[in-house]
Amino acid sequence: MIEDLWLVGIGTGSPGHVTLDGMQALRDAAVILLPWKGAAKDDLLALRRSILAAAGTRAEIRCFDYPERDPALPYQTRVADWHDEIARRWSAALDGAPEGPVALLVWGDPALYDSTLRIAERLRPRPALRVIPGITAIQALTAAHAIPLNRVDGPVKITTGRRLREHGWPAGEESVVVMLDGACSFTALDPHELHIWWGAYLGSPSQILRAGKLADVAGDIVTTRAEARARHGWIMDTYLLRR
Amino acid sequence: MIEDLWLVGIGTGSPGHVTLDGMQALRDAAVILLPWKGAAKDDLLALRRSILAAAGTRAEIRCFDYPERDPALPYQTRVADWHDEIARRWSAALDGAPEGPVALLVWGDPALYDSTLRIAERLRPRPALRVIPGITAIQALTAAHAIPLNRVDGPVKITTGRRLREHGWPAGEESVVVMLDGACSFTALDPHELHIWWGAYLGSPSQILRAGKLADVAGDIVTTRAEARARHGWIMDTYLLRR
Ligand SMILES: C[S@@+](CC[C@H](N)C(=O)[O-])C[C@H]1O[C@@H](n2cnc3c(N)ncnc32)[C@H](O)[C@@H]1O
Ligand SMILES: C[S@@+](CC[C@H](N)C(=O)[O-])C[C@H]1O[C@@H](n2cnc3c(N)ncnc32)[C@H](O)[C@@H]1O
Repeated sequence: MIEDLWLVGIGTGSPGHVTLDGMQALRDAAVILLPWKGAAKDDLLALRRSILAAAGTRAEIRCFDYPERDPALPYQTRVADWHDEIARRWSAALDGAPEGPVALLVWGDPALYDSTLRIAERLRPRPALRVIPGITAIQALTAAHAIPLNRVDGPVKITTGRRLREHGWPAGEESVVVMLDGACSFTALDPHELHIWWGAYLGSPSQILRAGKLADVAGDIVTTRAEARARHGWIMDTYLLRR
Repeated sequence: MIEDLWLVGIGTGSPGHVTLDGMQALRDAAVILLPWKGAAKDDLLALRRSILAAAGTRAEIRCFDYPERDPALPYQTRVADWHDEIARRWSAALDGAPEGPVALLVWGDPALYDSTLRIAERLRPRPALRVIPGITAIQALTAAHAIPLNRVDGPVKITTGRRLREHGWPAGEESVVVMLDGACSFTALDPHELHIWWGAYLGSPSQILRAGKLADVAGDIVTTRAEARARHGWIMDTYLLRR
């Protein structure tokens, strides 16, 4: 049973992204739950461990494995079952752990395209939730390029690669951020009126940046992304498109 | 002349929002430029000073005054002139200051509805810019309410109070964040299909939160906001609307 669950946003790749509140929470937690995502993501586990070292936490570290999603089930059921299973694994990993607040390190900010909050809602009895915000990939992107996210007082749209592919350029938008894109979906757009600021492994020592007119740089980004992905075994990238 | 200019995102109201990178930059800077925004915003100056104290910086602190905007000029010219004048005041405030990196503390994240990057672009010769991301009001809002920003894989729209008043609910959106709203513009929407999560002075000890069906809580938010604004002499609020 978890009474207090703290979701600590850790930013996107550097211990320097963690806030003072985040570091303090890692020190004050009794237990820290760490995911073990398989060998391809060793780098991410190493980063999490270096954050814990920087915090100087004395919390007990407990690891849990991510379950596989059952591809036979329809999407919504699959996700719901998967979340249930993760919530069970958290509880199992805490068996016999010291009492007190349990902390989870959440990539970026816990509110943005992350399932930890939804998994936490499935715990019974419901724990008291505390969320500590973290730097998102969007902020790591604009900081690395030293650019504003919006035009003066202008709107911003955040969307996914799949939506961009399926619906094209969102009507009426001027600044569009694309995340969760495994397929360079910007290649489906008319490149002549768009500028792109792209970044991979943002915030980490492996950070790669590209920017320019989409017509000029799209090809280079596609190649660079494929090469980097092959080299690291994984990639996370985010981009801003502006008309 | 400024060779290195660092824009340090400080989050939205608590020294605990500052990242380790942000704190380190404040320690490494030779000079820190602080705005003096007039007595009503004394609280904000006090917060900035407490962040500097927490960082333990030895940088020389230089203050500058914000100029008035000239209401006689058309909007675009007015903003451009105003930015020029601020850039001049930065330079003037640095007269005789020690050499080395100059840091500015930027509210929230420097990329989101903030003019510091645009002002910095007006400096000649152009300084080397470094941006350190900070927690935005959006993240402070979702963290305080312990809610996700998006529905599962869903899009998010960030907009301003003025746009919401002028254009109504943005077509096709499910999650809309509203900032820069001096007029409770949510009161112009049909409240029956919307849920609101509202927050003022987010991240600070004065934080106020409200959430519920818009039809149920809109009136309370209007009253609470007016009272808080009268009491503090200023207010900053942000909200998320979801269908
Ligand atoms: C499951 S979402 C998590 C987002 C995270 N909660 C945040 O606040 O940034 C993963 C997506 O975030 C983006 N992302 C996360 N970390 C990134 C990084 N270091 N560099 C580039 N993109 C990143 C990518 O678009 C990736 O597909
Ligand atoms: C000029 S913008 C600056 C935004 C800032 N750069 C950020 O990243 O949050 C000011 C607007 O941000 C929001 N805001 C900033 N600080 C806030 C706070 N502490 N609580 C609620 N809203 C805040 C309000 O919508 C306000 O009108």
